[in-house]
Amino acid sequence: MSSALFDPVFGADRVAARLDDASWVAALVAVEVALSRAAAEHGVVPAKDAERIATVAADLKIDPADLGRAAVEGGNPVIPLVRLLRSAAGEAGRSVHPGATSQDIMDTAAVLLVGWAGEIVLDDLRGAADAAAALADAHRTTPMIARTLGQQALPTTFGLVAGGWCAGLDRARTGLARVLAGLPVQLGGAAGTLAALHPHGPAVAASLAAGLRLSDAPQWHTERTRIGELAGALAVAAGACAKPATDVVLLAGTELGEVSEAAPGDSSSMPHKRNPIAAITARGAARRAPGLAAVLLAAADHEHQRAAGAWHAEWETLGDLLRATGGAAARLRTSLEGLAVHPDRMAANLALTTGTDPSPGHAADLVDRLLAERP
Amino acid sequence: MSSALFDPVFGADRVAARLDDASWVAALVAVEVALSRAAAEHGVVPAKDAERIATVAADLKIDPADLGRAAVEGGNPVIPLVRLLRSAAGEAGRSVHPGATSQDIMDTAAVLLVGWAGEIVLDDLRGAADAAAALADAHRTTPMIARTLGQQALPTTFGLVAGGWCAGLDRARTGLARVLAGLPVQLGGAAGTLAALHPHGPAVAASLAAGLRLSDAPQWHTERTRIGELAGALAVAAGACAKPATDVVLLAGTELGEVSEAAPGDSSSMPHKRNPIAAITARGAARRAPGLAAVLLAAADHEHQRAAGAWHAEWETLGDLLRATGGAAARLRTSLEGLAVHPDRMAANLALTTGTDPSPGHAADLVDRLLAERP
Amino acid sequence: MSSALFDPVFGADRVAARLDDASWVAALVAVEVALSRAAAEHGVVPAKDAERIATVAADLKIDPADLGRAAVEGGNPVIPLVRLLRSAAGEAGRSVHPGATSQDIMDTAAVLLVGWAGEIVLDDLRGAADAAAALADAHRTTPMIARTLGQQALPTTFGLVAGGWCAGLDRARTGLARVLAGLPVQLGGAAGTLAALHPHGPAVAASLAAGLRLSDAPQWHTERTRIGELAGALAVAAGACAKPATDVVLLAGTELGEVSEAAPGDSSSMPHKRNPIAAITARGAARRAPGLAAVLLAAADHEHQRAAGAWHAEWETLGDLLRATGGAAARLRTSLEGLAVHPDRMAANLALTTGTDPSPGHAADLVDRLLAERP
Amino acid sequence: MSSALFDPVFGADRVAARLDDASWVAALVAVEVALSRAAAEHGVVPAKDAERIATVAADLKIDPADLGRAAVEGGNPVIPLVRLLRSAAGEAGRSVHPGATSQDIMDTAAVLLVGWAGEIVLDDLRGAADAAAALADAHRTTPMIARTLGQQALPTTFGLVAGGWCAGLDRARTGLARVLAGLPVQLGGAAGTLAALHPHGPAVAASLAAGLRLSDAPQWHTERTRIGELAGALAVAAGACAKPATDVVLLAGTELGEVSEAAPGDSSSMPHKRNPIAAITARGAARRAPGLAAVLLAAADHEHQRAAGAWHAEWETLGDLLRATGGAAARLRTSLEGLAVHPDRMAANLALTTGTDPSPGHAADLVDRLLAERP
Repeated sequence: MSSALFDPVFGADRVAARLDDASWVAALVAVEVALSRAAAEHGVVPAKDAERIATVAADLKIDPADLGRAAVEGGNPVIPLVRLLRSAAGEAGRSVHPGATSQDIMDTAAVLLVGWAGEIVLDDLRGAADAAAALADAHRTTPMIARTLGQQALPTTFGLVAGGWCAGLDRARTGLARVLAGLPVQLGGAAGTLAALHPHGPAVAASLAAGLRLSDAPQWHTERTRIGELAGALAVAAGACAKPATDVVLLAGTELGEVSEAAPGDSSSMPHKRNPIAAITARGAARRAPGLAAVLLAAADHEHQRAAGAWHAEWETLGDLLRATGGAAARLRTSLEGLAVHPDRMAANLALTTGTDPSPGHAADLVDRLLAERP
Repeated sequence: MSSALFDPVFGADRVAARLDDASWVAALVAVEVALSRAAAEHGVVPAKDAERIATVAADLKIDPADLGRAAVEGGNPVIPLVRLLRSAAGEAGRSVHPGATSQDIMDTAAVLLVGWAGEIVLDDLRGAADAAAALADAHRTTPMIARTLGQQALPTTFGLVAGGWCAGLDRARTGLARVLAGLPVQLGGAAGTLAALHPHGPAVAASLAAGLRLSDAPQWHTERTRIGELAGALAVAAGACAKPATDVVLLAGTELGEVSEAAPGDSSSMPHKRNPIAAITARGAARRAPGLAAVLLAAADHEHQRAAGAWHAEWETLGDLLRATGGAAARLRTSLEGLAVHPDRMAANLALTTGTDPSPGHAADLVDRLLAERP
Repeated sequence: MSSALFDPVFGADRVAARLDDASWVAALVAVEVALSRAAAEHGVVPAKDAERIATVAADLKIDPADLGRAAVEGGNPVIPLVRLLRSAAGEAGRSVHPGATSQDIMDTAAVLLVGWAGEIVLDDLRGAADAAAALADAHRTTPMIARTLGQQALPTTFGLVAGGWCAGLDRARTGLARVLAGLPVQLGGAAGTLAALHPHGPAVAASLAAGLRLSDAPQWHTERTRIGELAGALAVAAGACAKPATDVVLLAGTELGEVSEAAPGDSSSMPHKRNPIAAITARGAARRAPGLAAVLLAAADHEHQRAAGAWHAEWETLGDLLRATGGAAARLRTSLEGLAVHPDRMAANLALTTGTDPSPGHAADLVDRLLAERP
Repeated sequence: MSSALFDPVFGADRVAARLDDASWVAALVAVEVALSRAAAEHGVVPAKDAERIATVAADLKIDPADLGRAAVEGGNPVIPLVRLLRSAAGEAGRSVHPGATSQDIMDTAAVLLVGWAGEIVLDDLRGAADAAAALADAHRTTPMIARTLGQQALPTTFGLVAGGWCAGLDRARTGLARVLAGLPVQLGGAAGTLAALHPHGPAVAASLAAGLRLSDAPQWHTERTRIGELAGALAVAAGACAKPATDVVLLAGTELGEVSEAAPGDSSSMPHKRNPIAAITARGAARRAPGLAAVLLAAADHEHQRAAGAWHAEWETLGDLLRATGGAAARLRTSLEGLAVHPDRMAANLALTTGTDPSPGHAADLVDRLLAERP
């Protein structure tokens, strides 16, 4: 779920720090603590137990590797975590995990984690879009040749090109933000009926949501449209990063030379190289997203009241997809924030194709519209 | 894009009839006619030309196979279609395709087509959800065993299970409807600058949108987030169909026997078989969606001002994905509308696991909430 | 499974003609006829019945649309086809479908169909590879700049570039041919035990294989590694086409201008455009393959002795994947067979990067090696 | 690329230990050391330099996190690694990385790593297949009902079912082993021409292959069919694991009860649960493979002489796919090695469907054939 070697290369270090093993453990613990408090709020467990559990949990040192090994038997880390918490809490241990099942804790922890990591992704998507908007604003009338199907076509302006980048990034961010905002807690108990919390189940769920600052919703333990929506939104965002990254790589090519990155990569053997590494690695990260999204979209067919595999396939894939998309956004942001634009090369290339209308039409007006409509 | 042999089996015949070659040709022609009218509205071309084009287009017999063969040279069917229309319209031919590029026509035609086909998909999603809601309503207190990880767990009710199906189908439909409603016309001209329509470009685009009853938006010829959103929403909907279809197949298994379809398939060699064919083929159709969605999500990296391949990959994939999702919804609807529920078998199976709480908690209350919150 | 409008554009018309509804019907009929003959060979049914069935089948006019509609009830077209054959064969009808189940016929027919279509794919892969080899041979010493990460790097020769294309196409073809050669008949009967043919089952299967010129193997009705291998080999071949197609698109770009297609596409509004349409549509087709392959690879989890959905998902996906890969190969072949190479532009571009070793090393030797090792 | 929390749950700990950051660093160092030695063998660099580099490399403590941070600038860890080695080797530093480019080192290191990890995957595939073969052997005549489309069909034997599992696992293993055995070193230099090693390039490459016990082949820096073949073979193997894992989950269901795992998972709230956790987590791992394979298959379109993104997308995806497939194999092996079979439950379930032939035909003969043909 994280790689100290590769995460920096692919811009994923910031987002991965919120998705690593320690983050998972922290999220799982946070959910258990919040659940005991929520249960206490409705008299299901003693309030002092809940506070004791919170105190104990705050002090507990949990080694993810130990937890991982102990998780093999039951197939998820909640079972051994509950044992740890119960053992540490003494008498208050009776109030750990009230009315819950492992999936409740895993799903809610995943939502927490996705929210934590999602903040970073949204921030980098915004940063990249802002950089694109600044380029669009600065170059709304800078003429360049539009290229269609790889060939020079007719004039446009670089501002209009960058404005299109911005529009895609903004739209993807807005879509992702909407999905993230709607991710609710999951609380259903062993059979999804909240039986063990009866008649306080829905109220405990609502309190759990409030305690974790998440939204509340009917149980969704086998109704995974939200996971699919998240997968779709993340892959769309990766695609919105891939488009400008691809353009930067092409425009920075030696023969075109219309843009260059602030800190292009060199090469040990070829000092003349000016590789647009930020855009390149943004593309590398973005290419991983569609397949990961497909895994999540295909995992919607949860059998009965808890899936025997489809659910499990979500855990690491969610993290990987967030890393891929977040990394693409971060690297693209770096690329665009430092992008140098070369109007002279644009003019020279534009001159190659003669006999065409030299005016970019009302491209500047179109840029104005794009920028005015930014969310 | 359609198969007379397989479409009925996978429930795709109704949706495929709006996605076949003839539908594509009709959509392309509709866009050209509407574009000439929109241009005429703003004085870009003579109004009588536009009307002549509309008349001529209505009478034109276009063989998709001829058009397909003629499309090879330029790589899309718009170029030969424009030739056909110009030739048929005589002097008014000068007013065919004003200010447009092939992608404008293809993209807007695709949006039309997706809208036509999407109506069917939404209708079947609603039908399936309504059937699930009726089952939930009728069986809110019908006890059955919840099964988690394939094993009997604790009691629930069939109504709660069906209520979860309904929630997923409703949510997927709502999400898909939102995406479909937002698909706009595309008009950008050769370089995406609307130069050839200057200064009437945006006004012509708005009129084109009004004429086709589509929404208007800045050009999106290389900003494909909407295609990605559509891919995501369709795959989510396929997943929302796969979940209940999977449950029906499992619950209809001989040993469980808790549900059966109204018209189960027989077998030439095994007359005792009662195969839940509608659910089975719904699953078969739904399984195709994630990979098709991944193709579309991966095709976001349109280079420059017109993609040399990524754009082309969208055309057939969009149709296939609509057929897969629409088929899954249609077959699931058939399965659920005729689903027979067997409370006696549910009770017998429930009795297998002893020592557990025999009460399904407040499952009925949870069903009420699910049904009350239906969109 | 086929589109008269789009198949020519994406080079799939030749392969699609072996994958359409009529081909499926022909393959299903061929399997039933061969099965009756194989059973007759071992005395399971009367030899005259088998010949009567063959005669009747040859005369039978089957409308795929009728068969498709009749296939809904049982979920596959074999059941109504068997009814048709039995009815047409009169008394010999008793000898139709001996000891078989629908999946035996569907799977074996799919193998036949894949073989028919695969021939075309292999032929176009070979044609494309031969064209690449000819380019490599002709240009083994034609200097051009190598480009890495989009930037000019050091000299190479166009022959070495084309030699790499050839190597990939050859390797992919060899791999696909191996998989195709290994696809066997499937015969297992209702439960996969060949019970109804006991003790002649394996012998009938062997005769069926011989009759259809397919290989024989133990039943694989739920052991789908071969389908996965086929999916992998086809997607690899699509990728082997995507690489040179991508290079052609880039090298044909206005600013590079190092190659051009024999029949570049023009544009109604931009007569100066020289779009490398064959390579572009090859890319468009190739991009569809990985997602389709993922659908097949994910469908390996056939439950019990006949999958309730995973099997069904294979049928159309196999055809679509063959169309995508075959189309990519056909379009790439057209691109490469007519590719014009422009050494002057290569020389001019090479001169842009100064201070580098002007010699392409022993590129010509490497070309020799590549060509000498061709399979 | 590894998770201490989740790897054990999904059986990936053993394979992940050969894919983690430290393994990558070790592989990269091993390639650089072997390259200097290979170059020395042909007089390209002094032999004493090569030995000095080997000694220095053995002592070098490299923190993957440091290397990762330093890798950002150039987009891969080879550039800073070469700096480290050169600096540590003193005068011999001149003989580090002779004639190579970053991709040569990355690709060859990836092949090493894939080989190391692949051994584990093959071992677990064999272990799982052997366990399936033992079950097939022991239960060749144990009657059970075959189930088709989820319904009871006709009798078979558990041995035949397990024999089919074995056949798939063996076939997948054989295919994967063939791909792994064919993965060669990559050595092409900056432009893929081996110019800097001229005229010793091919000889140095051959020595490098010998030194690393890998095969030799023409350069494949942008000819990625082998990566696609590996992706396909791994996903096929994951599918071959998913099939028996799915059957185990279904057969272990409470109502069927025909098999159970040796160490089924319990549940904190439901002590009666006997979850077949090994099979469940095998399915969870296997479900991730097709999407990851699709990423690799789609990344075949490397532009020019070094891809700007497609190459980079391979690195982490390869590791993730090996972890997914290896994990599935390991968990399935655990499941099958400890699988308890319950003939009494099989007999009882078989009795549910009356009026059918009670004999499993020559299922035992079919088992014999399957076992006799094991590779």
